[in-house]
Amino acid sequence: MNIKLVSLLCLCSFGATAETVGYRAEILYFKADPAKEKDASVHYKDGYLIVKDGYILKSGNYATLKDQPVDSMIDYSGKIITPGFIDTHVHYPQITMISEYGEQLIGWLNTYTFPTEIKYSNHPYASQKASVFLDQLVENGTTTALVFATSSPVSVDAFFEQALKRNMRMISGKVLMDRNAPAELLDTPESAYEESKALIKKWQHKGRLDYAVTPRFAPTSTEEELNIAGKLLREFPDVYLQTHLAENKQEVAWVKELFPKSRSYLDVYDKSGLVTKKSIFAHSIHLDDTDYKVMSEKGASIAFCPTSNLFLGSGLFNLDKAHQYSIPVGLGTDVGAGTSLSILQTMDEAYKVTQMRKAFTDNPDDVHSVTPMENLYLATLGGATVLSLQDKIGSLTPGKEADFVVLDPLAGQVLAGRNEGSKTIEETLFGIEMLGDDRTVTHTYVMGKKMK
Amino acid sequence: MNIKLVSLLCLCSFGATAETVGYRAEILYFKADPAKEKDASVHYKDGYLIVKDGYILKSGNYATLKDQPVDSMIDYSGKIITPGFIDTHVHYPQITMISEYGEQLIGWLNTYTFPTEIKYSNHPYASQKASVFLDQLVENGTTTALVFATSSPVSVDAFFEQALKRNMRMISGKVLMDRNAPAELLDTPESAYEESKALIKKWQHKGRLDYAVTPRFAPTSTEEELNIAGKLLREFPDVYLQTHLAENKQEVAWVKELFPKSRSYLDVYDKSGLVTKKSIFAHSIHLDDTDYKVMSEKGASIAFCPTSNLFLGSGLFNLDKAHQYSIPVGLGTDVGAGTSLSILQTMDEAYKVTQMRKAFTDNPDDVHSVTPMENLYLATLGGATVLSLQDKIGSLTPGKEADFVVLDPLAGQVLAGRNEGSKTIEETLFGIEMLGDDRTVTHTYVMGKKMK
Repeated sequence: MNIKLVSLLCLCSFGATAETVGYRAEILYFKADPAKEKDASVHYKDGYLIVKDGYILKSGNYATLKDQPVDSMIDYSGKIITPGFIDTHVHYPQITMISEYGEQLIGWLNTYTFPTEIKYSNHPYASQKASVFLDQLVENGTTTALVFATSSPVSVDAFFEQALKRNMRMISGKVLMDRNAPAELLDTPESAYEESKALIKKWQHKGRLDYAVTPRFAPTSTEEELNIAGKLLREFPDVYLQTHLAENKQEVAWVKELFPKSRSYLDVYDKSGLVTKKSIFAHSIHLDDTDYKVMSEKGASIAFCPTSNLFLGSGLFNLDKAHQYSIPVGLGTDVGAGTSLSILQTMDEAYKVTQMRKAFTDNPDDVHSVTPMENLYLATLGGATVLSLQDKIGSLTPGKEADFVVLDPLAGQVLAGRNEGSKTIEETLFGIEMLGDDRTVTHTYVMGKKMK
Repeated sequence: MNIKLVSLLCLCSFGATAETVGYRAEILYFKADPAKEKDASVHYKDGYLIVKDGYILKSGNYATLKDQPVDSMIDYSGKIITPGFIDTHVHYPQITMISEYGEQLIGWLNTYTFPTEIKYSNHPYASQKASVFLDQLVENGTTTALVFATSSPVSVDAFFEQALKRNMRMISGKVLMDRNAPAELLDTPESAYEESKALIKKWQHKGRLDYAVTPRFAPTSTEEELNIAGKLLREFPDVYLQTHLAENKQEVAWVKELFPKSRSYLDVYDKSGLVTKKSIFAHSIHLDDTDYKVMSEKGASIAFCPTSNLFLGSGLFNLDKAHQYSIPVGLGTDVGAGTSLSILQTMDEAYKVTQMRKAFTDNPDDVHSVTPMENLYLATLGGATVLSLQDKIGSLTPGKEADFVVLDPLAGQVLAGRNEGSKTIEETLFGIEMLGDDRTVTHTYVMGKKMK
């Protein structure tokens, strides 16, 4: 599909965005990280969001903006508009194998993941699953995601085609894997290079799409292949690097065996030039202070995946350390090891992970539990910052792409009963984060178009 | 309400149960604990459940039973019938304060719980909340629960009235609390005794109701009041004892200060005669081997409350130890510290708690993750055994009360996509346990009456 056709698609399929629309609702987003700055949130109790041609034209108090000319006005009073959610780590091919029993990381990969991923070299199959996956993201209010495909380029094509069709801002890439997996899934350093390069040329910057060089993790790539990944990053400085890091203690021990010369697991990636400003490391649980320092200095980011970490019994991510070293953090559902595509349910377990760290220390008061505001930040502007997209998405200031969700603080009898008594936006928000699911997301807008 | 009137109510309101109805579906229940016995489950792929007058008449293969005379037949083919879920620890007055931010146990009680519970001396308010609570249990497939009221007898009356109206098998009791709480909530050992006694006489064995002597926990009852609780158990040997035990390390330390003469937290209760076959101890996380041994010898039980334990950062319950000491265990939602009334969501986090214990040991293979079958056992026959009700509920053999649920293994696009490929009932069941919520519970039957 050439650029002209894409533009045409944007004008036609997404033509609904050509008019100027005002949305009246409570509005909440961030201009900074509430873990670091006091007045980081922007909150309009009776707010107004004006969208034109898929972009935010204005946002503010309804009383102030109500006389602005609009073609139509939609009244969502009683609901809350926030930026669309951002999922910084998820595997679309694993949607059919979400929640499989009984294993920790390595056994889980061999028993469930690899046999499933083999199916994705079939284009119709991959397309159908990518379509379901993206529909479910919309259902859950997720408008942007950093997504693993499989090692087959077909799986990447299928995913990007479906994302383009929906005009969703998505990042994905072909998995690099040249050892320790079934032969059908393996590439070679050479084919990894050629296939990735071809996919970058085909998809990078097409519509709202971006490419990520995607070595699965150190145990399934030789040093030679990791070096190839580094070479791709140097040749295409705009692309991302996504991989897994220090999820599980046995995995960390295995990496130590496989790469005896490296100081640490992170150092394996660093030696191949994979720790950059555009690198996102999923999990990053079992790190030492030198690792945090290196990540911080190189500007790399972390995808915190609480439902997955609990499901696989991987460990408790240390958000305090990430804050201490100023490492950007976003939330990841990590489906299929994560147990839900819902970022709200991910926030629930993010809170539980920070709380649980108190049970394993003699000074629980020294452990900071993620606040309702910090949790929403992680899911919106925090995620956008992890993806270096904070100038495009993650907040609702003029000029941003109009990806937003409409949340119902009274969805369902239990949440309604709890939130009826809420006195502050923080209290209401925490109720939504702990009890919410796809039913709490009333509407999802992508570039100003109502998708749910 | 006298017994005659109750019987009349059963015949009228629940008159739908007077006919004989056959339900065709996949059927799954237990005859023993799958953690201990190999062939503990009873599974009919194409099953038939015949219910007469609110009781199970027969259950088995459809092919074998299809010629049995019934007044009507309902075809739930494609769905799974299991016994109704049993919640062995929950606080109905906390439904309006489910998921409140930022505290561990003691701070959470003082900041959120006590101010909420004060409202329940108002009968209309308590009735309305009890009604919502019971409706939500039905919505989630829970047919029996062991329920904390508040220290006001009014809260107990309101709850039992609503439970009786629905003919649900419920156990509750007035909270005993004579110190370390706001004055409005405190009783005295004398009033605790008189009020409990009056409530036992009023409610014990009325319809399907039972009474539980309910000291909140050792820190809020003096030794004198705990002894009064023991006296009530001796005078009324049929009633239950429910309380909290060793949930949080700071709580354990506080109990040590308050009761310096006791060997352990459990020993405080034991000294007052509160560790019996009809005693259910919520949480029971921070125990030593002597504690497990005492519980085992006295036949006491544990309510395992995973969503609460994660939410308050209390700790990881050791199910292996309970099995080792043959202590009966059931699941508890523990709303409002628990984050959902759904037993399915509770099973999800029960699995996660057993998995997470692997992250804190050098020998993760020695930690047993609760299996899909074991998890369903905990929620059904396991819970019934904890409540000494295994002869009445928790399974689907002839003569049992017809409390059952109809589960949809394909509810929603993600669960459907995952379960379409399931090859065994264990695999399907695990999908339901990890991804299911109230929408997975298609119908809930109470004594043969369709309530959802």
